[in-house]
Amino acid sequence: MTEQLPPDVIAQLKAMGSAITAELAQSSWALLTPFHEKIGYTAPQIDRDLRYGDDPRHRLDVHTVGTEAGAPVFVFVHGGGFVRGDKHTPGSPQYDLVGAWAVRHGYVGVTMTYRLAPEHKWPSGAEDVAGAVAWLRQNIARYGGDPDKIVVAGNSAGAVHVASFAAGHAAQGDPAGIAGAALLSGIYEVRTPQPGQPEHAYYGPNPGPETSSLPGLLEAPIPLLFSVAERDPRFFQEAAAGVVGAWLERHGTVPDLVWVEGHNHMSTIASLGIAEAALGPALARFIDRHTTTEGTAQ
Amino acid sequence: MTEQLPPDVIAQLKAMGSAITAELAQSSWALLTPFHEKIGYTAPQIDRDLRYGDDPRHRLDVHTVGTEAGAPVFVFVHGGGFVRGDKHTPGSPQYDLVGAWAVRHGYVGVTMTYRLAPEHKWPSGAEDVAGAVAWLRQNIARYGGDPDKIVVAGNSAGAVHVASFAAGHAAQGDPAGIAGAALLSGIYEVRTPQPGQPEHAYYGPNPGPETSSLPGLLEAPIPLLFSVAERDPRFFQEAAAGVVGAWLERHGTVPDLVWVEGHNHMSTIASLGIAEAALGPALARFIDRHTTTEGTAQ
Repeated sequence: MTEQLPPDVIAQLKAMGSAITAELAQSSWALLTPFHEKIGYTAPQIDRDLRYGDDPRHRLDVHTVGTEAGAPVFVFVHGGGFVRGDKHTPGSPQYDLVGAWAVRHGYVGVTMTYRLAPEHKWPSGAEDVAGAVAWLRQNIARYGGDPDKIVVAGNSAGAVHVASFAAGHAAQGDPAGIAGAALLSGIYEVRTPQPGQPEHAYYGPNPGPETSSLPGLLEAPIPLLFSVAERDPRFFQEAAAGVVGAWLERHGTVPDLVWVEGHNHMSTIASLGIAEAALGPALARFIDRHTTTEGTAQ
Repeated sequence: MTEQLPPDVIAQLKAMGSAITAELAQSSWALLTPFHEKIGYTAPQIDRDLRYGDDPRHRLDVHTVGTEAGAPVFVFVHGGGFVRGDKHTPGSPQYDLVGAWAVRHGYVGVTMTYRLAPEHKWPSGAEDVAGAVAWLRQNIARYGGDPDKIVVAGNSAGAVHVASFAAGHAAQGDPAGIAGAALLSGIYEVRTPQPGQPEHAYYGPNPGPETSSLPGLLEAPIPLLFSVAERDPRFFQEAAAGVVGAWLERHGTVPDLVWVEGHNHMSTIASLGIAEAALGPALARFIDRHTTTEGTAQ
């Protein structure tokens, strides 16, 4: 038996559908939080609110056992529709669970916060990922991390920011100081957003082609993992299928795409760190693969 | 750390490239067989050459601990370009390893042989999969298997046969007596083959549209997993990308597609049962998922 959720939980996830609403977030986390509480979602040591830049949102938490040396570093960039979200919601597993998951796999875990729209517009998210990576390359050895083994993952708007960061370095053939990027339920081609849509707040009413990360991702000398959840809305399914088609054309193969079976846009991340193998093993193998052999950043 | 091959083995696999040749088969198996010999590739009990039909190739082996009851049944249909291959090559892990892998996961393992081209043409492969499934539904309980929990996997030409079998039942909304099908490096749309190409021997010079399984797979009420290896040749990459596009159009989501990182057309199957998580965990989770909750065949 591989690890999967109990049948009644699988059924409840299914019943929630796929529309991204506050209710979906609330009910998904309510359903899976007890599993995290049971297994524990805090790493033995968490160094909080380390400053990687001048803005109050330029903060990151480092999750460790406290005795690492030369460990891969797994950075998580949260979602929240460009306008909300945080690395840490006290009293909840969001997103200390990702740090705990990383530590259990032998990595140093990093969760980071970034500036938000509408105050901060494109490409502020990518700039903040770059700022955090620069800080980690300078400082993470002190926490037992290897600065040449940084893998950055983003979810939803976080995936958009990580993708923009990675794509922005592609033209120079530059691996951006990272050993890999995992893009979990992201969007890589920006279309004209309608007022009220999350993209509108971040890109404004008329984003130019330079806001799409897909062309840069296709050229980026950085190992990439993409994922999409079974119950991600159609827009995300189209984004994933679009990556597959473009990748085939550019590289002659399909990309490393993980289909997160049974999960929705919110529960994908909540599936990490509990007895549920929908995403975790594939993500861990990606990190291991690119931090133990080839793919180490220069 | 998740399970992956040692760096020197990864490098050797990479150096072999992707062209499907006798040399690729020989060198891939030579590279990975020592791992199987070390860990063991024979289940505690193997009942060999059980007859599921009249042809001398209508034979299957059942791999068990010997004490199963009500276990999921995992059936493996080998590849070989329609014209060669066997369920069992004495003295080699081909394909007892699949039975041993199944047994380690708590399943009854079944490896089967089928009729070959050019003597036997389309749809003889699908007919033989159907014959084996019918036999298993009648007889596998005697070996500890649950006839309502049969998952059939095929590799390469074997995937083509399993796909044709599944697709052929789709029009009737019939789950074909199986709880799921895993299509590993298959082709689902047949184009006009050139003499000397493997498809020519099986489909003849001018296969009709009825030989393509994709339309039926899109309608089949059977859970499907698709996989493609990183170093599968372009034709297989196109097939996988084609499934993604067609699936999005039909179902509004991407399909359950596994990208078998680091492997080629031959080593994908050889990656099962050793300390290498490229395919095994995703395949086992698919089997578990559809034999423990929904998806059980009627």
